Amino acid sequence: PTAVLAGFTYLTYRAFCPHGRPVPCKSINQNILKTNPKVVDTIDVEDIADKAVFCRCWKSKNWPYCDGAHGAHNKETGDNVGPVVIKRKEK
Amino acid sequence: PTAVLAGFTYLTYRAFCPHGRPVPCKSINQNILKTNPKVVDTIDVEDIADKAVFCRCWKSKNWPYCDGAHGAHNKETGDNVGPVVIKRKEK
Ligand code: FES
Ligand code: FES
Repeated sequence: PTAVLAGFTYLTYRAFCPHGRPVPCKSINQNILKTNPKVVDTIDVEDIADKAVFCRCWKSKNWPYCDGAHGAHNKETGDNVGPVVIKRKEK
Repeated sequence: PTAVLAGFTYLTYRAFCPHGRPVPCKSINQNILKTNPKVVDTIDVEDIADKAVFCRCWKSKNWPYCDGAHGAHNKETGDNVGPVVIKRKEK
């Protein structure tokens, strides 16, 4: 009976522990424009001065631009994401 | 005893069912350049003809460009991500 109780306790723990096991990623975007059915940003080339850096981690507080938040995201999760940089060639 | 068995069975199911409960997102990027510590793409403005569409869902098979894979991702996960579009103004 002690073994049964221990097994029961362990299974209860496994069943409800929020950190029990890793799972594949679901939503990528947790916060940005969640009422918008699809977040697409359109930028005119003519409005890019020398360089524009666009967020692809969905954590920037300066969306759609990168503010470096990918660094904390990568560190916390072991991910390896970063921005896309659009730049003018040096003259 | 039947009730105990049912409870035990349910907890075992909960403990090991991979779809048991939603969890917050961890890695965003599952497949792209995973040996690279940080995936940054740099594009010259001069190489953009009329329009370039860059993937931000990390599911495109034509990385760093969008191939529409965000549609399946959004449908499967309830997410709302989409690309960034860099375009030249119409003349
Ligand atoms: S802050 Fe998101 S890619 Fe840099
Ligand atoms: S395929 Fe990734 S944003 Fe379109």
